[in-house]
Formats: sequence, C-alpha cells, structure tokens
Amino acid sequence: MNLPRIPFLPAARRGLLLALLAWGATAQAEDIQSPNKQLTLSVNVQANGVPTYSLSYKGRPVLNTSKLGLELQNAVALTSGFTQTAATRRTVDESWNPVWGEVKTIRNHYNELAVTLSQPATKREMRVRFRLFDDGLGFRYEFPRQPELGYFVVKEEKTQFALNGDHKAFWLPGDYDTQEYSTVTSNLSQVRGLMKASTTPNASQTPFSATGLQTPLMLKRPDGLYVNIHEASLIDYSAMHLELDDKTFVLESHLTPDAVGNKGYLQTPCQSPWRTVLVSDKAADILQSKLVLNLNEPTQFKDVSWIKPVKYVGVWWEMITGKSTWSYTNQDNIKLDSIDYKTVKPNGTHGANTAHVKEYIDFAAKHGFDAVLVEGWNTGWEDWFGKHKDYVFDFVTPYPDFDVQELHRYAESKGVKMMMHHETSGSVRNYERHLEKALQFMNDNGYNAVKTGYVGDVLPLGEHHYSQWLINHYQYVLEQAAKHKIMVNGHEAVRPTGLSRTFPNLIGNEAARGTEYESFGGNNADHTTILPFTRLIGGPMDYTPGIFETKVSKLNPSNTSFVHSTLARQLALYVTMYSPLQMAADLPEHYNQHLDAFQFIKDVAVDWDDTKVLEAEPGDYITYARKAKGKSNWFIGSTCDEQGRTSKIDLSFLDSGKKYVATIYADAKDAHYEKNPKAYTIRKLNVTRKSKLTQYCAPGGGYAISVVAVN
Amino acid sequence: MNLPRIPFLPAARRGLLLALLAWGATAQAEDIQSPNKQLTLSVNVQANGVPTYSLSYKGRPVLNTSKLGLELQNAVALTSGFTQTAATRRTVDESWNPVWGEVKTIRNHYNELAVTLSQPATKREMRVRFRLFDDGLGFRYEFPRQPELGYFVVKEEKTQFALNGDHKAFWLPGDYDTQEYSTVTSNLSQVRGLMKASTTPNASQTPFSATGLQTPLMLKRPDGLYVNIHEASLIDYSAMHLELDDKTFVLESHLTPDAVGNKGYLQTPCQSPWRTVLVSDKAADILQSKLVLNLNEPTQFKDVSWIKPVKYVGVWWEMITGKSTWSYTNQDNIKLDSIDYKTVKPNGTHGANTAHVKEYIDFAAKHGFDAVLVEGWNTGWEDWFGKHKDYVFDFVTPYPDFDVQELHRYAESKGVKMMMHHETSGSVRNYERHLEKALQFMNDNGYNAVKTGYVGDVLPLGEHHYSQWLINHYQYVLEQAAKHKIMVNGHEAVRPTGLSRTFPNLIGNEAARGTEYESFGGNNADHTTILPFTRLIGGPMDYTPGIFETKVSKLNPSNTSFVHSTLARQLALYVTMYSPLQMAADLPEHYNQHLDAFQFIKDVAVDWDDTKVLEAEPGDYITYARKAKGKSNWFIGSTCDEQGRTSKIDLSFLDSGKKYVATIYADAKDAHYEKNPKAYTIRKLNVTRKSKLTQYCAPGGGYAISVVAVN
Repeated sequence: MNLPRIPFLPAARRGLLLALLAWGATAQAEDIQSPNKQLTLSVNVQANGVPTYSLSYKGRPVLNTSKLGLELQNAVALTSGFTQTAATRRTVDESWNPVWGEVKTIRNHYNELAVTLSQPATKREMRVRFRLFDDGLGFRYEFPRQPELGYFVVKEEKTQFALNGDHKAFWLPGDYDTQEYSTVTSNLSQVRGLMKASTTPNASQTPFSATGLQTPLMLKRPDGLYVNIHEASLIDYSAMHLELDDKTFVLESHLTPDAVGNKGYLQTPCQSPWRTVLVSDKAADILQSKLVLNLNEPTQFKDVSWIKPVKYVGVWWEMITGKSTWSYTNQDNIKLDSIDYKTVKPNGTHGANTAHVKEYIDFAAKHGFDAVLVEGWNTGWEDWFGKHKDYVFDFVTPYPDFDVQELHRYAESKGVKMMMHHETSGSVRNYERHLEKALQFMNDNGYNAVKTGYVGDVLPLGEHHYSQWLINHYQYVLEQAAKHKIMVNGHEAVRPTGLSRTFPNLIGNEAARGTEYESFGGNNADHTTILPFTRLIGGPMDYTPGIFETKVSKLNPSNTSFVHSTLARQLALYVTMYSPLQMAADLPEHYNQHLDAFQFIKDVAVDWDDTKVLEAEPGDYITYARKAKGKSNWFIGSTCDEQGRTSKIDLSFLDSGKKYVATIYADAKDAHYEKNPKAYTIRKLNVTRKSKLTQYCAPGGGYAISVVAVN
Repeated sequence: MNLPRIPFLPAARRGLLLALLAWGATAQAEDIQSPNKQLTLSVNVQANGVPTYSLSYKGRPVLNTSKLGLELQNAVALTSGFTQTAATRRTVDESWNPVWGEVKTIRNHYNELAVTLSQPATKREMRVRFRLFDDGLGFRYEFPRQPELGYFVVKEEKTQFALNGDHKAFWLPGDYDTQEYSTVTSNLSQVRGLMKASTTPNASQTPFSATGLQTPLMLKRPDGLYVNIHEASLIDYSAMHLELDDKTFVLESHLTPDAVGNKGYLQTPCQSPWRTVLVSDKAADILQSKLVLNLNEPTQFKDVSWIKPVKYVGVWWEMITGKSTWSYTNQDNIKLDSIDYKTVKPNGTHGANTAHVKEYIDFAAKHGFDAVLVEGWNTGWEDWFGKHKDYVFDFVTPYPDFDVQELHRYAESKGVKMMMHHETSGSVRNYERHLEKALQFMNDNGYNAVKTGYVGDVLPLGEHHYSQWLINHYQYVLEQAAKHKIMVNGHEAVRPTGLSRTFPNLIGNEAARGTEYESFGGNNADHTTILPFTRLIGGPMDYTPGIFETKVSKLNPSNTSFVHSTLARQLALYVTMYSPLQMAADLPEHYNQHLDAFQFIKDVAVDWDDTKVLEAEPGDYITYARKAKGKSNWFIGSTCDEQGRTSKIDLSFLDSGKKYVATIYADAKDAHYEKNPKAYTIRKLNVTRKSKLTQYCAPGGGYAISVVAVN
C-alpha cells in the first residue's frame, strides 16, 4: 500500500500512525447483534481492502460474506483498497406515531455500527452505516463531504447479498420500467429458465437480464427461514434491482441506468438509500416489520391535519373493463390547442360526464365514502398512449360534458370530496410544466388528492421509470403537492420504500399488478397472498379491491376476463392489503345487488391503532386482524390461494372484559373463485378474547369479519 | 404497383383513375421560375416514385437532381413509391414591417409550387412546398392530417442538395451540441482531411461524422456563384446538419438525434422547417437576403411595444478574461439550499457586487446605454459547470453582495434597465421548474431582457443542444418569456432560423464563436468577414464587440490571449455584425481611455430603416451601410481579413439634396491586429451622395463611419 505523505507529523505520532496502518492492512472485523441477540452482523475489511459483511440468525448463516462498494464512472472504484479508520456504535430505542398506518405507535429499536472506510490511494472516505433490528438489517453508504470526493457518477453499486443456498423465491422479472408482472414462485436456480415466459407484455418495459430480479424480493429457505430484500428511503438515487448469480446464489445490486448508462449523479455529503434484509423464522414477522419505515426520516411537515386516509369510489372500473371510455370522442390524432371538442361528435360512451359522476357522488354520500375519483375528465384521452406525445394533457381543461364547478358544488353539498386524476402518459416534462397550475386548479375546485399515472414509455426516451431522473420527478411532484396540501397516489411510479414516513402525503402507490389486471386476463389466485410479502413491504398499495361482479363480460360482452377471487375474498382484501387509501372499485349497481356484503366495505376502517398477523405463509394464505383507529372494533381478513383451506384463529388479541359481535362474511361451501365466486354467507357471532374460530376459505377465496364491541 | 381497392367506384370513374395512376407511374415534372426568372426549379417524380428537385441560376445548374423524402422508424419510408397527385402554383408579392431589423420594410415575393405526393402502397400523402424567390429557394415537407399518417417518428430526413462540383466552403464541423468552432475555409473535397484538427475542444460537443457540416453553410463555386444552405422556422423538429458525400458532392440532411437515436416525433398536420438555398453571383445578395425571415410566419403578438432594440454594457468581459469571477466564494462543492453564503468567506474577486454594478450603471447612464447586464449575480457559481448537477441555480437568489432592490432603484433613477442572466448549465428541467418564478422575479425587479445560457452537456445526458426535445425547450422559454413581456437572448442554444419574425422577443442568440473566444486564444482575423455569410443568415448574433484593450493580459496577467482585431474594426462590427442587441463589451476604464473612438459606439444605431452592402467577399471583406431607424443618419462599417486592403465605396445611397458630416474611425497606417491594434485615426469630412471614399484597412482591421445629416 502507499503511505500517505505526512511530512510534518512528529516521529512519535508517525510511529503510531504506521502501527495503525499496519493493523489496517490485515483483516479488520466488527460484530454487532440485534437487540434481542438473534441476529449477528459481522463487518470485515479483507486483506485486499474489500469491505464485506455477513449476517446470521440464531446462529444460522443468512448472508455469507458479501462484498460492499460502488464502481464509479471515470474514477477509481470504491470497492477495494479500503482501511477501516473508525467504527462507532450506538443503540437507539424510541417510538413514534405515524400520521396514518397499521399501528398507532412504531418502535424504532436497533443497534447501530457505522464503519468508516478510508481509501489511502485516493484519499477518499466512505462510511457504511448498519442498523440491526430484531427483525432485520438495514445499511447504507454514506459519502461525507471531502476534498477528493465532491461530485461523482455511479457506474454500478456492487452490494452483494450472498445467500446461503438455493432458496424458494417470490420474484418479478427485473425491469427498469414496470413491476406489473405476475409474481413467479420458484427456486432461484429456476429463475433463468422461467424468465422469458414470466416477462409478459406491458405498456412500457425494459427487462435487463435473464437473472435480474426486482425488490422487494421474498425468499424462503428449506429450513423455514424467511428473508426479504428491499430498500428504504429512495431519494435522489436510482432504484435498485438484484442480479442473481444462479451458480453461487449471490445477489448483487443493479441500479437503473439513465439514457447513457450512468446509474446516479451524486454530490457529497450524500448517501445511498438503505438496503434492507428482513429475517425471521416466522412469516408473520416479515409482514409486521416496520424496519423499512423506521429507516426513513421523520416527517418535517409541521401541519399534517390535511392528510387523511380515504375510502373512495370512482369512475374507473367501467373504463378498465371497456364498458365506458376515458375519451369523449372517437376522433383520433388530436392536438389539444387546436381541437374544439364542442364541434366534434361525442362517442356516447364517455364515463366522466356530469350526470353520471353525480350518481357516483350520490352513492358515495349515501354510503359514507370520503371521495369520488373520476378518470377521463380532462381533454386528450383520444390518443394519449404510445404516441411519444409531449403535450398530451394540460390537466386543467375538462371535457365539455364534465362540469367541474357544478360537480365541486354538488360534491361539497353532499359532503364528498372529488379525487383528481393526472395521467401523464410518461411525458414528465409536460406534467412539470403544467403542475403548478394543475395543483392550483385542484385547490380551486375542491380536490385534495390526486392519482397520478405514468403509463407508457418515459419521455424523453432513454430515461426509465426507475432511473434517478424519474425518482427525482416523483419526489418533485410529491413536494409540490405538499405545498398545496394535496395527497398523492402514484401509479406506474417507482415502488415505495417507506417514504411516507417523511412525506405522509404519499398516500398510495400502485407499482404492481392491481385489480385492473383482473380485466386484462386476470391475476393469479394466489396473487394477494404474495403481495403483502413483496410489494407492500415498501408501503401501501392502491390495489382497488371490492369487485362484486367478477365476470367482466357482464360489463363488456367482448371481455372474457374474470376476477380470480371470490366475492368474500374481495372483502378480505380491505384488511389484508393494507392501505390508507381504499377504493370500492366496482360499480354502484353491483353493490346495490349485494348490499349485505357491501356493508363490510362501508364498515371497514382505513386507519388503524393495531395490527396482528394471525396466520401467514407467502403464496398460500394470510390472515390479519386490525383494530380501527380510535375505536374498540377490529376487522379481520383472510385470503388463500387456489387450493382453499380452513383457517383457524383465536381472538385473544381482543380486549379483556369486552364483548363483541362478529359479523363473518365468508365463502359458501360451494364457492370457488372461477366456478362460483359469488357464493357467500354472512353470519353473526358473539365473541370475546377467549373465542376461537374455524373458518373455511374456498379456492381463491377468503373471509372478512367485523368485530364490533358492544360494551 | 398495388391498386388501391375502390370497389364502389363507377366503372367510368375507375377507368379515369386507372389512367391517372398509369400516368403517375411515369416520370412527372413541374417547373417554376423565380419572379425575375433567373432561378428555375424542376420538381420530378422518378419512375420508381422517388421525388427529386433540381435548381438552376441563369441557366447554370446549381443543384443537380436531388432526392427528397424521409425515413421513418418502424414504418415504410417516405422516400419512394410516390405518385404526384396534385401540383398547385401561386405567386405572392407582399411586404411587411419587422418589429426590428435591418430594413424598415421587407418584400416577400415568390412563386410557389406545392406538389402533392401520394404513396399508394401505404395510402399516405405528403406535400412538398417550394417557394422560389429572386435570391433563392425555400421548400419544406408538409404532412396533412390523414388516416394512415397520424403520429410518426423520423429516422432520418433524406433531403439532398446535389452540388454541381467541388465548391469552396466556409464550414463548421457538424456537431449536435456546439457551433463554437472556427470556420474552416476549404474545398469540400478537403473537409475530411481537415475535420479532426477543426474539431477543437468545447464545453459540450458531439461531432458525428468525418464529413458532417453545420448550417448555414456558405459555398462559393469556381465560376463565382455563391450558394448558402440553411433552414428556416425550426419549430418542433430537430436541427439539420449536412452530411457530405465527398465523392459526388451531394449534401444530405442529417438531423440531430435524441438519446435513443430518433430524430423527431411528429403528429399530422405538421411540416418540416424550410430548407433554404440562397443563390447569387453577387456575394452582397446573400447578405441582403430576407428569404429566411420571409419563410417564417408573421408574428401573432398583438402588442410589441415592449420589444425594443438594446445597446448595453455589462459585468461580463472582466470575468471572461479572468480579472474577476462569477462566483462570490472559492468554496467548492456547494448545495444551494444548505449553504449560507453569509458564513462563507468571500473570495474578494466577485464582479457582480452592488458597488461595482453601480459603476456600470453610472457609465451606462452617462453615455446613453439602455441596459446593464450582470452575470454571476445569483448563487451557485462556485461549481456550476460540468458536474451533471441538476439543481445548479434557482435564478432568484442573489449573492449577499448583490442588492437586487437597491440596484433596481438605482438603475431606474438613472434611466437604465438591468439585464438578467440565466445560466442553466444545460440543466433544462431545473430551469423550467424555476422559470415562472424567475420571470416574475424579473418583472418585479425591473428586468425586461434575459440572456440565457446552456453551457455544458444537456441534462438528462443523451439529449443534445440541437435535438427536438431541446428545440422545444428553447421555444417554451421564448413563449413563457413573452407572457412576461421579456426579451430573450439565447446563448449556447440552437442557431437561429429567422424565428424572430414570429417571436420578435427573440432579440439575440449566440450559437457561434463570439468575442469571448478572443479571451480563449483568439478568433481568426477573418472570423467576422465570414460570420455574416454563415451564422447571421439565420438571425442576429450577440457578438459583444467593442473591445478596446485588445491585450487580455492587461486585465489578467496570466491570460496571453489577444483580440484578433484592431480597435477601429471593433467599431465597425456594430455595423457589420447586425444585431438589435449590441453590447459595448469592454470595461468602462478602457473606454474612458479612448472616449474619442468610444463616441462611435455611443452614436451608432441598433435599429435600421435601410441596409446596403457596399462590398463583400466571404472571408476577405465586408462593408455595410445602414440608415438609422427614423433618422437621416447612416452608419458604415467595414472589416477585412488578416491581409488588409483598401476599401473603395461611393455614397450614392445617401439622400439627394442632403449634406452630411462623415466621421471616419479608421486604422492608422501602421495599425495591425496583432502588432499595433490600437493605432486609429478619426477624421471628419463633408459628404453628399456624390462622394466617393477610399479608405485603408489594416490587417485584421476595418473602419467605421457615422454619416450625420446637417440639413
């Protein structure tokens, strides 16, 4: 190694320094344990100066020696030649209350080890900060401000997760532009063989490797250990994928590139997002982990009174199924500033017309919903998709048959909020150009939440939905919206990484196959038994459940899709698919046919004081119980896969001394997600914390229970 | 060929159609002549359906058979298989008055031929519209709205300009990001051999070919014919370069690509910019041509009272030379929102400090200048360049030593305007995000013009200064500025194409090597005898002349550059380098040393009722006479190359019956741009329209004359 030139240092100090450096040249190791001592992390700098870490759980190796570092463009890599120059430890045990969430109070309890690594040859320094929780590990790279590292360009992050063998994985094809794939369940050794068939068509997609995977990646080992890999606090950085070496089962970070292949532009002081590894021998612990949220920064919002969970209906499923249209005319090839819609023949199928929207408002008001989403309200939907069209929407001009002021007045008179929709078609510059006016338009017209959309390729082409340039765009929209006290529900944006702790107006995200795919051929019957272990690890999903009419052909005879779920399970999803933003996605007319079942959707809470996972196995079944915010009532939801099963739970989580009436919305004995989805039963039971319950779930089915305190 | 299926057409009509189609399958030709009949254009559709044109001047071929058309991405090319289905002709002879310009009234006189070309195999249609003026040709592609051509992506435009041999060319290396090269004078056959050495380093550059050239391209044939190729009305399209086949001397259009190689995203109805070919056997006709302006659309601005030509001084040359700095501190690696400049030590060299700017305001007021430009006024200049830094400036926050309100008050009290500077560092998204506030800030603080800058690579990387995405950005800035009644002077933006007719607030552009290069090693001595034939064909240039202290070392001892011009020629440039925006670029202290010569800069007009080219030969010399707007006074400027020469002009353009005093600012006998640049003489003469003048110009020299009416 080259000694740094330190000519003026006194001889004695120089001797000490040489001793330290000599010590640094041999392997260095630091260990820490989780608060409950079940997880042990070892951090090492190898003899060649390569920093590594490894992780074990109850003495069993979880991650073997895994390398750390980054390769830079036009600069020496930050992967080797390091000496450990400091290691600081601390323990944090605190708790905080989220603005909205699954529990009232979140404990943030970890042991921290921050290792400072110096690269003498370049006089650069980086720090790796590890936080070891009882349920897993988070770590990130930190780049302090320093003379020899100001601005730098990431060529690739080289973080390894060296698994201890060929685990069962619940995975999506790695892709720079979409997460809307069906989850594949296979061993890691089978990924390569399954990749091609698993990479199903999407409106925008850029797969990058035969063994590339997305996060959150859920793994289960033969010994029953569950491992989940994701990231937390993705800000000003590219989204991380994982590249699998299917010989060694080492996963390595693979960042989303920009148009010229660079993976990030950084300026010190700065840091990477946290890389997260959840570990437990109980699947329920993975679902209950708050590690990702805890690794995000507390919010700086001083006033959060305007952020409120929302239960909503909307003019949406009828377009998704093809019953009605987003567009007002059948005219093709339109230019926003030159078309006069009043002179063009309406197509007669436009969903977002004033009279029809009023029906939704009436329905929402009658049944106690907070808001009505309306898509297709603004001009431009005739040729919004796939045209590389820069000026595709202006976000403020309604179609002639959509009376913004009248609907504002009408909704307000009924105590219902309107929910805005901003589809960008990936034309993000155009959206930013109109954003301020669009947000002001929302303030002026009584909208307090917006569903954004990024369907199709990002413009300019070459940028990707998950590259740093777009990550910064989503962040910009979130922050501008906050200035207008507007909540954001981002569809086709990057999957969440717990940012809602810091920016609680990020009320929802899509970033996976939602209910819409039930109209595009259908989701797998086990889909919603997997998502809580994968997509939802990063944050809530606007899954839009509640489809009662599961045959799409009833809405559109030419659409042969069906919802791969029983009706009872559609109710369960309001509990199992956590979100502070829950849609009752079906049409009012379908709810009116099943008002007894619909009662559960009306009753179920969207914000919670407590959450229990009663049963869980990824891909097989999930049963949650949640306690409504500020109330004694609980809601239970259970879903299973295509096999069906019998769920056995006990209600010991209920308050002692309390009596409850449980209303159980369940699959009938002959129910089946494909053959007989609408066969459901509703029964009431008196229950206490001593009660136990055995409940059948049909194939592709589930159940929902409201547990209402009566004393 | 495939007949279109027309099943319901009556047999008789079908017969006619077949006849027409049969006629279409043979070569078709249309000729038109220019109003003065000196230019003849022939348009042909070859037997294979390839559209072509050719052009002759006084019977001599200018362009041989040249192909027309475009290649599309993922669609059949629009280059062959065409049938001419219509040809319409018309003559236009009108005149219009520009908001500002070289002449008071511009005549727009042409014969037009619009040829409609149908491609039966694809049922698509395009039109090529030719306008033949006395001084050249303009033509463009028009894509009418049609069922089979809505949106399309241009792979390449395949417009040929088949020259009639190996001409002498005044050329720049083709480049997607800069025009700041020294013009090379060589035969076309020599381009390839000279390309590498001619592609000198620049802050952002993307050369694309060993024979790629930029427009405007000035050509001179062995027979003395002058030809100039450029484009007009570049809107929503990529900038055109020319690819030279140096065996056949066919030039072919080469558009600027985006990050994925596409060259344009179009939606019908739409059109290409005009491709322009100026032709004359008099060099002066090229300079006096208004063809490019005429091919732009009339302005739609209802109120143009806020658009006014500007003569200005500024805090600029002192930074360019290294005498002072844009930055306020020597701190590196700053983040705008976290640095507190009040706590950072100032570097003591910051040019844009309040006291110093007041000196410029005083100087401007004393000498009758309209405005004072100040660069380096806003925070962020410490590390603004080459960092791929997204949030590089906010355009509204001044350095602590620049008091915006006080300077606004002070300038206003002196009757002087402040001129804004918005350097973007190529981070165009960041600029757009801040644009509205930045323009409002200008309105609030008395600025009515902005110099924009795009130094360095465009973000996101992959986009280019001249690609459609950027063209649309410059246009957006221009239009947003117009809403705030702000004039724009775009530096490092695309070279102009006559857009100022439509958007007269585009008051200036750089897009070539300006005076700043005199501090970066120097411009060639013949530089300003070429630019009017090349860069200025598209529109005015903010060349920033008027450097009296030509030794840069006098400002900064470590800078050995010198201005490749005599002092007298610096005066001439105010006449020869037409611009409605003229800077006196040197420091007040240098002007104070030569107040007699400075008088010309004070006197010279910046807007004109008439312009005459008295002498001209590209690369050798140029002599202009211009009549001040609304006055009887004329100003004459002459520049020559490194050889020196004696200019002989007569003043017959002066009004009959008028007497004038001419003040002649000329090179002394021993003047020389390198050895003795400041040797000048000033003399006065009484002149009339019968006067003739013989005036010596030193090597790299020139002269300037004010001709003031006395009766």
